Amino acid sequence: MKNHDHELLSRAIQLARENVKEGGGPFGALITLDGKIIAESANQVIQNNDPTAHAEVETIRRASKVLNTFDLTGCTLYTSCEPCPMCLGAVYWSRISRVVYASNREDAARAGFRDAELYQEIILDPDKRSIPFVNLGLPDAGSEFEAWDQSEIRKDY
Amino acid sequence: MKNHDHELLSRAIQLARENVKEGGGPFGALITLDGKIIAESANQVIQNNDPTAHAEVETIRRASKVLNTFDLTGCTLYTSCEPCPMCLGAVYWSRISRVVYASNREDAARAGFRDAELYQEIILDPDKRSIPFVNLGLPDAGSEFEAWDQSEIRKDY
Repeated sequence: MKNHDHELLSRAIQLARENVKEGGGPFGALITLDGKIIAESANQVIQNNDPTAHAEVETIRRASKVLNTFDLTGCTLYTSCEPCPMCLGAVYWSRISRVVYASNREDAARAGFRDAELYQEIILDPDKRSIPFVNLGLPDAGSEFEAWDQSEIRKDY
Repeated sequence: MKNHDHELLSRAIQLARENVKEGGGPFGALITLDGKIIAESANQVIQNNDPTAHAEVETIRRASKVLNTFDLTGCTLYTSCEPCPMCLGAVYWSRISRVVYASNREDAARAGFRDAELYQEIILDPDKRSIPFVNLGLPDAGSEFEAWDQSEIRKDY
């Protein structure tokens, strides 16, 4: 198992290196189920002009498509670098069971990426962040949750 | 400006309610530039079998496509509910300038969503989380960042 982890994580790093050659960001990831790779991707932010297209998010999207479900329970994510807060959130929402990574948020910071900074911002109160987060009271706030609660066709996720 | 905020945020809540009628999750969002809506979306997790397809992420992807850039500086995001950690990360990576929301993470928790739980998980050390995060040392770890550093075609994002 341990050697298998090394091999798969090394593949994620290779995807990251190959992506740099094509002008893409230096991040790669893959997802396995029962030890087999079911999806892989490098960062596609630059190529797709999509700020959400981190390697982990892209790989989760692809794996969900392959398995035709939003629930990746039992899957393992191998990623060249510790997931940023966005990708960490994506991991939890997908219910991936295990994450293996190589570089960490400080390594990413040294390479010029804001991962460590985001981990600091996220713990601040919404009104203390560098981007203003304004909570606005509205008469219809929460009406969407009431509709959800009463829905007979809802599917919990 | 204030009344305009109310109107736009109310539209995001309306998108959330309409989505519930179609069997989708109770979240809606839209992005404006210079006061005009350039993209909107409700949560598409169930419809697309995509755990990353929260309203905010989808709307950011659409706005990036419309503007043909991964940099949404100057844009405002209106969202029916406080962004979860994944969506908050997406906001920072996209450089959106301002976020306006109605319900918050506790409201989402009462409706059965794990937003508040994720805000707790994210501040834990990677090896203390409910999903195991394993940092594996590898000889080629960081080689992707070296390649990035030396790249002459790189485009910072």
